[in-house]
Amino acid sequence: MANKAAPDSSRRSERSRRAIFDAALTLVGEVGYDKLTIEGIASRAGVGKQTIYRWWPSKAAVLLDAFTAGVDDYDVKGLPDTGDLAADLKSVLRATADEFNDPAFQAPYRALAAAGANDEELSRTFVARLMEPGTRLYVDRIRAAQEAGEVAADIDARIAVEMLLSPFSQRWLMRTGELTHDFVDTLVDQVLRGLRPRG
Amino acid sequence: MANKAAPDSSRRSERSRRAIFDAALTLVGEVGYDKLTIEGIASRAGVGKQTIYRWWPSKAAVLLDAFTAGVDDYDVKGLPDTGDLAADLKSVLRATADEFNDPAFQAPYRALAAAGANDEELSRTFVARLMEPGTRLYVDRIRAAQEAGEVAADIDARIAVEMLLSPFSQRWLMRTGELTHDFVDTLVDQVLRGLRPRG
Repeated sequence: MANKAAPDSSRRSERSRRAIFDAALTLVGEVGYDKLTIEGIASRAGVGKQTIYRWWPSKAAVLLDAFTAGVDDYDVKGLPDTGDLAADLKSVLRATADEFNDPAFQAPYRALAAAGANDEELSRTFVARLMEPGTRLYVDRIRAAQEAGEVAADIDARIAVEMLLSPFSQRWLMRTGELTHDFVDTLVDQVLRGLRPRG
Repeated sequence: MANKAAPDSSRRSERSRRAIFDAALTLVGEVGYDKLTIEGIASRAGVGKQTIYRWWPSKAAVLLDAFTAGVDDYDVKGLPDTGDLAADLKSVLRATADEFNDPAFQAPYRALAAAGANDEELSRTFVARLMEPGTRLYVDRIRAAQEAGEVAADIDARIAVEMLLSPFSQRWLMRTGELTHDFVDTLVDQVLRGLRPRG
């Protein structure tokens, strides 16, 4: 009996977990981080709030897991490495631009980023859990290109990645420009131009 | 009599304006943008709230003028042009890093940036009034370097400036890294390396 019950219970838990994540991401986009509550998430997800408290200590923890659940796949695969650094970066960043331009993605991510700008602990968790793993994939890809001789050995890979990703993030967060494929292509070309081995 | 009264009244106005700006910047750092009120600013500045409403329609308008008053000088002078682009950019960005690392500067600017991430109209005004004029100084300096042959003619000056300023802003806003002079120097060198004319 115990053996048969376990998969059902685990499927039920997984269904609740998904419902809670969807509710948290939708709600934070609708009401903002400050007005988001565990009660609100529970009600939207159709679960008791004790179910949420059993798994997470705070609304920030729920949200961070909800976001992380969406990026885990990407994280495991790493960036493509076809041997053509420019093509690989353009393909990933064009897809990321399409994602960031999607209103359904925008609202929750923006609410979390905004809350993080004012709340240092949330910001540090947000960066460590969400931004840093993604950034590290790019750093790894630049290092692989350094080993392949496509990028100069004396380049600071971390700062190179910031030259690539920060203009992208800032255009989006501060609405200082459009995230078009043309922008992505020019950015990649202009950053890589400085990274190539000299002579 | 009217001729004598005018300078006194204008000095008094200027004193009130300064007191209102100081109060607005201090308070937004203390309580955040959401809890900032015209009443609170008036009380801290020692003026009636009608004085504030006579000059500004909203707390956002007061804050933006308060920030702009602090950067006007810089805006008028433009970036230094000694003929050495790397040295000029390092000197300006090192000074800017020192300023951004000052807690008295941090709190109000961060509160406004955070509020802007969630409030599109505030964000667009913030960008147009505060970020864009500064960005344009850098674009002008890169264009001057293009004319002087220090930077390749086919470089997109705007994106070059974003490669320089966005990593700086993001480290500060998201707390993803320190704003040290070493960071600034490496960033400038690495960006300029890609901008130089080829061959």
